Amino acid sequence: MAGEKVSEKTIRRLSHYARCLRKATTDGTAIVTSEYLSNRCGISSAAVRKDLAVFGEFGKQGSGYNVSELLENIERILGTCEPPPVIVIGAGNIGSALLESGLDGTGGYSYSAIFDNDPKIIGKTIAGVTVQPIDELREVVGEQGDFIAIVAVSPDEGQSAVNNLVKMGCIAILSFTLEPLDVPGGVVLRYLEVSTELDILTHSMKCRDRC
Amino acid sequence: MAGEKVSEKTIRRLSHYARCLRKATTDGTAIVTSEYLSNRCGISSAAVRKDLAVFGEFGKQGSGYNVSELLENIERILGTCEPPPVIVIGAGNIGSALLESGLDGTGGYSYSAIFDNDPKIIGKTIAGVTVQPIDELREVVGEQGDFIAIVAVSPDEGQSAVNNLVKMGCIAILSFTLEPLDVPGGVVLRYLEVSTELDILTHSMKCRDRC
Repeated sequence: MAGEKVSEKTIRRLSHYARCLRKATTDGTAIVTSEYLSNRCGISSAAVRKDLAVFGEFGKQGSGYNVSELLENIERILGTCEPPPVIVIGAGNIGSALLESGLDGTGGYSYSAIFDNDPKIIGKTIAGVTVQPIDELREVVGEQGDFIAIVAVSPDEGQSAVNNLVKMGCIAILSFTLEPLDVPGGVVLRYLEVSTELDILTHSMKCRDRC
Repeated sequence: MAGEKVSEKTIRRLSHYARCLRKATTDGTAIVTSEYLSNRCGISSAAVRKDLAVFGEFGKQGSGYNVSELLENIERILGTCEPPPVIVIGAGNIGSALLESGLDGTGGYSYSAIFDNDPKIIGKTIAGVTVQPIDELREVVGEQGDFIAIVAVSPDEGQSAVNNLVKMGCIAILSFTLEPLDVPGGVVLRYLEVSTELDILTHSMKCRDRC
């Protein structure tokens, strides 16, 4: 299955399985059942069994799945065997909180650099990473674009941050900025938006009352 | 259309239109075209026109849409005319960053309270909101459940935080906690997961190379 483009929903489930299998490895669990994954991932056991039939080439329903082989297989499908470095643009509240929270349990991602344009912030160290001036972005990341960038700047600075990243060849951006951002074709830009989630939750609350 | 359950994808787009229309109001813009919304929301103009034909009862294609009427209509569909208060469980890095970033431009949401169980953090003020002991949750929110809770605690505390909220009647939870959490039927639990987003982006990068 490696090499095939998989739907976002499936990737999301595989990502959850991988996280759960890493935890099982840490706990010293060598074999897991589909029920184990179902319970811990909050995914129906029917869906888990179906996924594992497709992706879990090494496991057998009934006798359980070898944790390390299943994890290896899932990481190969995800492409996360060698996770790209993650850089953060913007060392404000959100950027700092991300670094301080870290990426443990994610299978090898780490924050390799953080950038800001505020002289008061540049040079500070956050969770062991020193804030570098945004002007040094090219020097640090090169032009291969083989990294993921998280954009956590103020709304009015989002587009120029993204333009800058695209110039460095970056093709994978995660934005905490509320403003919609333009990227050329071939660049994947995703948003983590608290306010949109709040609207979705509010709608579900109101629907309970009136729908 | 008010009162109907709308798909999540549609709510997401309506949420973006609403944010954009609020900004137009602030900027003193009274009439907008579908192209205006398309450009600023990063949504194709065909999709915008289709949405507005369905939801924008007050507007007319060609002559533009009255900003305040369209916004009012969209907020009625979303149910966000009177947004519920938002409380935060966990005043660590992420919880603090959320409060400090605020909810401007979201049409009236605000963080009304933040809770923690760490005596070193309780009593601190973050962006004007004082951190309260988690034991006082019931006293503060009552048992009506008419609020949205954001859970930003460490992974091993997620489930007990959620159990506690459900006991208070809470039916709308947004979790920053990586561990999957169990909620009873009727409770909507959504996740904002950086690590899953990183997996989705990594997969898209690898696919560009090999798919």
